[in-house]
Amino acid sequence: MLSFYICLRKIPPMTEPRINPNVSVDCVIFSFEDDGLEVLLIERNAGQNRIEDDLLALPGNLIYEDETLDAAANRVLRELTGLKNIYLEQVYTFGDPARINKQKDQDWLHSIRAHPEARVITVAYTSLVKKSNFKISPSSFARQAMWVKVKEVPQLAFDHNALLEKALEYLKHKIYIEPLGYELLPERFTLAQLQKLYEAILDDHFDKRNFRRKVLRTSFIIPLNEKQKGVAHKPAGLYRFDKSKFHKI
Amino acid sequence: MLSFYICLRKIPPMTEPRINPNVSVDCVIFSFEDDGLEVLLIERNAGQNRIEDDLLALPGNLIYEDETLDAAANRVLRELTGLKNIYLEQVYTFGDPARINKQKDQDWLHSIRAHPEARVITVAYTSLVKKSNFKISPSSFARQAMWVKVKEVPQLAFDHNALLEKALEYLKHKIYIEPLGYELLPERFTLAQLQKLYEAILDDHFDKRNFRRKVLRTSFIIPLNEKQKGVAHKPAGLYRFDKSKFHKI
Repeated sequence: MLSFYICLRKIPPMTEPRINPNVSVDCVIFSFEDDGLEVLLIERNAGQNRIEDDLLALPGNLIYEDETLDAAANRVLRELTGLKNIYLEQVYTFGDPARINKQKDQDWLHSIRAHPEARVITVAYTSLVKKSNFKISPSSFARQAMWVKVKEVPQLAFDHNALLEKALEYLKHKIYIEPLGYELLPERFTLAQLQKLYEAILDDHFDKRNFRRKVLRTSFIIPLNEKQKGVAHKPAGLYRFDKSKFHKI
Repeated sequence: MLSFYICLRKIPPMTEPRINPNVSVDCVIFSFEDDGLEVLLIERNAGQNRIEDDLLALPGNLIYEDETLDAAANRVLRELTGLKNIYLEQVYTFGDPARINKQKDQDWLHSIRAHPEARVITVAYTSLVKKSNFKISPSSFARQAMWVKVKEVPQLAFDHNALLEKALEYLKHKIYIEPLGYELLPERFTLAQLQKLYEAILDDHFDKRNFRRKVLRTSFIIPLNEKQKGVAHKPAGLYRFDKSKFHKI
């Protein structure tokens, strides 16, 4: 009878997928809007309770045994923050045996996981979105989810500051080889708006005239015969982005 | 007495590090020399025996619990092929739950691993070397290690063809943003040699005149006032690469 009871306890319900205790995914979701580059962070619950003075974290969790890494990243992001239908790209995998070395992280893991001591290798994913297109609704162990200015990100849980750095580096590289971020601008944009985007991602400040000269030398940013309307200042000229010309180069 | 015996059997010797059954590393080592782009592959032993008609594989293995992913990649490459002191870069992590679906791979895993059914997520690393600088000496479960022309790579073990593709893609992207491969050329090289390098990596054929014009438009490939010596054909002009100018751009 006892062994029957133990047996019953050990078999998880059919609907609950088996967790892989050694592999997790973490999502570094950036947003660019007028207020610059921000990143999506969560505040963690411990079990059903909040740990006082806990560390903010990137949304992330262990993967299921029967799902791909991409599927896990999408699921975890949705479960923790409510964000879905986001095109996530894999950035880098972090596997330092000492990546869970802060006391607060260990306490949190002990409050929430079946194998809190297991070594966890984490696969970082990233995306760049327009935050006004998405509604945040935290759940699971995320008590809160919020956009935080990249420049104001405090010490995070685990090695999440390193993940954030790597994802930023990935964005910076990518902006040179892909038409990154144009979907975050209006279809017809001013050069000031474009400059803001590049400055936010590259964390740099450009001289306005130099930037304009360089942009006009490319063949994929096309000046339109139109100007801004309804602005208080002198209206600026409008431009559009030609994706096919970018790819040709 | 029996339990003492079992206990003795279960404790591994102190010197043997614990293996993580869920995470492996694989190394995609490319070589460029006169005969084009090649990749380093191994022929696997099963236990102490060779499986007849087995699949070739990238050098790879499970990680130890106490080592970083980078350290694991270096160790595994050294153990299987003898190659060491190679600058390995992480490319991508492969985690499809069905990545070990070929019968030959399952047979091999059963012959060699403690947990042949465990799901394995693998982290791919890559490097581009000059093969004549290295001596291959296979050991551990690698019966043989050999350079194979990338264009002639057959069906490989596991998802290793996909790893190879991803590493190639990584090289192609990289050649646009980093001075990739110049250390594989002589210090003073001809434009024909440079063209061969780009053609091998980009898997493309360039018109000689166009290539020359584009190269001379860059500021980091510097024509020298020298020509080849001791060649049967008309000696070609020599060039050098200016790393600092490349980085400025």
